[in-house]
Amino acid sequence: MIIREATHNDFEAIWPIFHEIVSAGETYAYARDTSREEAQRLWIGVPRRTFVGEVDGQVVGTYYIKTNQEGPGSHVCNCGYMVSSSARGKGVATALCEHSQVVAVALGYKAMQFNFVASTNDGAVRLWQRLGFEVVGRLPRAFKHPAKGYVDALVMYKWLGT
Amino acid sequence: MIIREATHNDFEAIWPIFHEIVSAGETYAYARDTSREEAQRLWIGVPRRTFVGEVDGQVVGTYYIKTNQEGPGSHVCNCGYMVSSSARGKGVATALCEHSQVVAVALGYKAMQFNFVASTNDGAVRLWQRLGFEVVGRLPRAFKHPAKGYVDALVMYKWLGT
Repeated sequence: MIIREATHNDFEAIWPIFHEIVSAGETYAYARDTSREEAQRLWIGVPRRTFVGEVDGQVVGTYYIKTNQEGPGSHVCNCGYMVSSSARGKGVATALCEHSQVVAVALGYKAMQFNFVASTNDGAVRLWQRLGFEVVGRLPRAFKHPAKGYVDALVMYKWLGT
Repeated sequence: MIIREATHNDFEAIWPIFHEIVSAGETYAYARDTSREEAQRLWIGVPRRTFVGEVDGQVVGTYYIKTNQEGPGSHVCNCGYMVSSSARGKGVATALCEHSQVVAVALGYKAMQFNFVASTNDGAVRLWQRLGFEVVGRLPRAFKHPAKGYVDALVMYKWLGT
């Protein structure tokens, strides 16, 4: 897989991945009916950088990186990752997350935080833990799952500095 | 104290309070040199509602309320509170926080979350605990304090529903 910085032109390939994941309502804190225009703003416009992972010229995954809190919190970044359903289980998320940690350090960040991981998303929680992230917070019933109702959301965190 | 919804005209009275607190860099995740224009955007423009507390026609405190996460997290709100240094220790923050919880329920929120409370801000932590908030997360060294260096930040949370 090649991981490269995304341009606004890449949004055509990102949108089906974004829409599939967000409309399911099981993992991301975006409105399930987020429009294409709003999605482009959220995923490419707002973040500091956005990347895509390509296999044979096809975008199979994407992530963004942005500053999580300004001022006294600006040394901590936040990332979001999405992988096409057709490319799951092939290490794409691992590769994107490892890439994002290198980019984070290059941009001067000292830590990475995931603010809102659905506790029902076992696969993601285990993956982030394997990559060195710790659960540092549990938000009681903060995530409304479409099938399971109000479930806890987790805050995960990794110090990147040496 | 009268608590009423703020208008953009109130920003003239809010700005000295905002600037004093934010430029100190000890409590809020805003850039210490946040401009007046940006402060107005952050405190009144972005949030869903902003309120001021007045004593004898003088604004002594203010708070905002906004949705903390969209989509599956949109039943949880976030608030920020500021009290003029001349009005501290008089229960202003308590009154503002209690008011905000009533407003939150009226707006349909089920819980309130503070994302980034400096662990060094003992007074605030104790106050929020007294008002029913629990520490549900601890972000290691996520807050860069101007005198104490990297200190932990706390995530605090209260379920407002019955």
